[in-house]
Amino acid sequence: MSNTAYANLKARFARIAALNEAAAMLHWDASAMMPPGGGAARGEQLATLAGLAHELLTAPAVAEDLAVAEAAGDWDSANLALMRRAHARATALPTSLVEATTRANSACEKIWRDAKARADFAMVRPALTEVVALQRETAAALSAALGMAPYDALMDGYQRGVTAADVEPVFAAYEAFLAEALPRAEEIQARRGVALPLTGTFPVAAQKALCQALSARIGLEYDHARLDESLHPFCGGTPSDVRITTFYDEGDVAKALLGVLHETGHALYERGLPTAYARQPVGEAAGMAAHESQSLIVEMQACRSDAFLRFLASELRRRFGCDVAVVAPENLARLWRRVSRGFIRVDADEITYPAHVILRFRLEKAMIEGALSVTDLPGAWNEGLEKLLGIRPPNDAKGCLQDIHWHDGAFGYFPSYTLGAMAAAQLMKAARVAEPGSDAALTQGDMAPLLGWLRAHVHGKGSLLGFQDLLRAATGKPLDPSDFMDHLRARYLEH
Amino acid sequence: MSNTAYANLKARFARIAALNEAAAMLHWDASAMMPPGGGAARGEQLATLAGLAHELLTAPAVAEDLAVAEAAGDWDSANLALMRRAHARATALPTSLVEATTRANSACEKIWRDAKARADFAMVRPALTEVVALQRETAAALSAALGMAPYDALMDGYQRGVTAADVEPVFAAYEAFLAEALPRAEEIQARRGVALPLTGTFPVAAQKALCQALSARIGLEYDHARLDESLHPFCGGTPSDVRITTFYDEGDVAKALLGVLHETGHALYERGLPTAYARQPVGEAAGMAAHESQSLIVEMQACRSDAFLRFLASELRRRFGCDVAVVAPENLARLWRRVSRGFIRVDADEITYPAHVILRFRLEKAMIEGALSVTDLPGAWNEGLEKLLGIRPPNDAKGCLQDIHWHDGAFGYFPSYTLGAMAAAQLMKAARVAEPGSDAALTQGDMAPLLGWLRAHVHGKGSLLGFQDLLRAATGKPLDPSDFMDHLRARYLEH
Repeated sequence: MSNTAYANLKARFARIAALNEAAAMLHWDASAMMPPGGGAARGEQLATLAGLAHELLTAPAVAEDLAVAEAAGDWDSANLALMRRAHARATALPTSLVEATTRANSACEKIWRDAKARADFAMVRPALTEVVALQRETAAALSAALGMAPYDALMDGYQRGVTAADVEPVFAAYEAFLAEALPRAEEIQARRGVALPLTGTFPVAAQKALCQALSARIGLEYDHARLDESLHPFCGGTPSDVRITTFYDEGDVAKALLGVLHETGHALYERGLPTAYARQPVGEAAGMAAHESQSLIVEMQACRSDAFLRFLASELRRRFGCDVAVVAPENLARLWRRVSRGFIRVDADEITYPAHVILRFRLEKAMIEGALSVTDLPGAWNEGLEKLLGIRPPNDAKGCLQDIHWHDGAFGYFPSYTLGAMAAAQLMKAARVAEPGSDAALTQGDMAPLLGWLRAHVHGKGSLLGFQDLLRAATGKPLDPSDFMDHLRARYLEH
Repeated sequence: MSNTAYANLKARFARIAALNEAAAMLHWDASAMMPPGGGAARGEQLATLAGLAHELLTAPAVAEDLAVAEAAGDWDSANLALMRRAHARATALPTSLVEATTRANSACEKIWRDAKARADFAMVRPALTEVVALQRETAAALSAALGMAPYDALMDGYQRGVTAADVEPVFAAYEAFLAEALPRAEEIQARRGVALPLTGTFPVAAQKALCQALSARIGLEYDHARLDESLHPFCGGTPSDVRITTFYDEGDVAKALLGVLHETGHALYERGLPTAYARQPVGEAAGMAAHESQSLIVEMQACRSDAFLRFLASELRRRFGCDVAVVAPENLARLWRRVSRGFIRVDADEITYPAHVILRFRLEKAMIEGALSVTDLPGAWNEGLEKLLGIRPPNDAKGCLQDIHWHDGAFGYFPSYTLGAMAAAQLMKAARVAEPGSDAALTQGDMAPLLGWLRAHVHGKGSLLGFQDLLRAATGKPLDPSDFMDHLRARYLEH
């Protein structure tokens, strides 16, 4: 049975969600459409929407309703629990701390842009020190309110249901795997020889047509979606009106194409969320690691598979008249699965990417716990990267200044990338067992068998389950890095 | 001196304005960008924003602050008065009436689309009867709260500072003018002979480039604006990020071009509003008639002038290689200033357009006053049009079903079109006196002298003055239809 208090809460959370949807559309517009002169007003609009959403969430009536609310059934019980969690997180932080954090993050982010351009960490150190201090205060307040460790409380804001204790053994296992697998992958790659480059001029309009056709082919319904351009590709919008963006380079068709396939994975997740719980906490995506698992299962697991590369080869040949040898699936595989020890996370391949994340996870956890000072960060970074990948950044722009995240106050987010990559492999393995025809379908660009399975086991579950429980229900076990390692072995170590 | 209560009110009205800005962007997006599947969620988002804005405006604290608020100086005094007016209008209507109106308007508008397509007034009659009943209830409630006549109270919602008593003599004078001027204009036009048609294929991309270049040439800064496509052209967005749209027909360059120049007039008004009072009532445009005066002073007064047609002729020739004789200014004048007695308001020329508005003003006023029933509307419409223009609609789709306005609950809006046209002529006359070089500049497509004058006397005034006072300050007199009639005489009766 449900009661009036729960009904009140559902109505209130639906309003909060509608405000957040409006903000999501305005964020998309700011990146994809807005003329530069609109920036200041947009800031006011977004601040007002965020402020009102926060007021709606922390109003006294919410605590009163939560105290007596009752909900029956798995979905509504989970929904009510998520409401309690959202309220606890929002009320745990004094307004003064929230405002100070917003200001400090914004100030640091601005300085960081210059500091990165000049490779001058000292320039941003004071601002980042302030950001970290406020994140530690935030973590402490959330820790007290939620009864979890400070760093876990931050991570919980990005991905509910995962703790550092879950992550550490998984990352340790990967580190051990990497030490053996990376040299071997490099050796195999060297033996195979250099790939033929996919060069030429690929007009933007033709690239856009390709990207839109392929994203539609793998399941994105364009009566509920748009594909536009922005400097940094992303997936925004709302579940019934999802907006993906990319950036076109006329000399490089792979960048936009693989980027759009990645964002399509995010978009398909949003499209598949349970409409019966639209604008309710339980109807939202399960978290950032879960979201990344869906972009990576599409981009890395499905679209870079041998099966799908056959389909892509024919599309590239048909649309751009590319040379048969260049777009041969084996050549595309060499081009798009190249392993390389690099300094930059966003340019990293599947094997080395987790090393970048493991480094950041350890450093940010140490900063939040007070074991690492901002002053010591560059040295710890360089040492850590050398230990993981055997390379040392020539400067901090290629080291601890490369990512926006920390400089914008995002601590606890980085693990999501690798948890997502590992979950993608684990889910793909389960999907292949359940849908034995899924690989054959991929050779035709048909993702329906895989998508059907993901809709049933991930998308349609919304936030009913936490990350580990979602994986358990879908694959029979919590996060297990061995499926990801098996995937890498099969793709990089056995040819 | 100002006090805390006034400061509180300014902060509150800034939040309300930010919500309204967010809604304006989402409305633009819905018309220009949104995939069809996003409609339902967009409805929820807009309803939430409107509901929160209304709650902010009618919260008990507003009445308390308004009771003791003090503001000094013209601008802040006017701002406070406008806050009182907005609050009085919002609190005059019970929530149940507002909700019933929204539902009835929405239901009627949907039925109207079918009824218009089938030219079947009986189909929409019950729904429109309900809409009118609720508008009468609304007008009565506003009348009681604001101390003005019921119809005036509705008109005041679209254009502050104008009453039916202002409008009636002006419209009567125009009706008398029309009876003499229209046959004479037709006679002169017939004597002149038929214009050479501007036919050809005008690729959308080239039309868009022309429209963007010309709107920029006359003053629209594209670092604060966008030009996009939508089914019905409009000007939306916010003062620092204004969004105009048009619809391209490859066989007809005039439609998009003249439409964009019209919307640019609206956009320039928004761009010129006083930034010192951004997001305050006194910083907004002075009303719908004032707004229409700015679109029409650009489109009709400036851009269809002999001077600007010379510039347009050279642009069309340069961009599309049009025949010299076809784009000769005299031929463009014959094409784009053609007088014709027609049934459809939106297709009407400058001379007959006011007849369409006068008809609607009289009918809607009678409906609000209870002197005309919805059942008798089609007959009264047909009779009225025959009396004004000597033609009788063959069916109601070309008669009382043609406009969305009433079927969407907009009563009191129609006069704005003709008040705007008249004000445009009055302002243009004053601007020509103050800026004697403005016509010579128009031959080069240069609107700077006119725009400078409008910025000083209209745009920059925001809502400091009501419509009549704005005209008085800018031109030395309240609305005077004789300037508009002089303009029509000079353009249509003296060649």
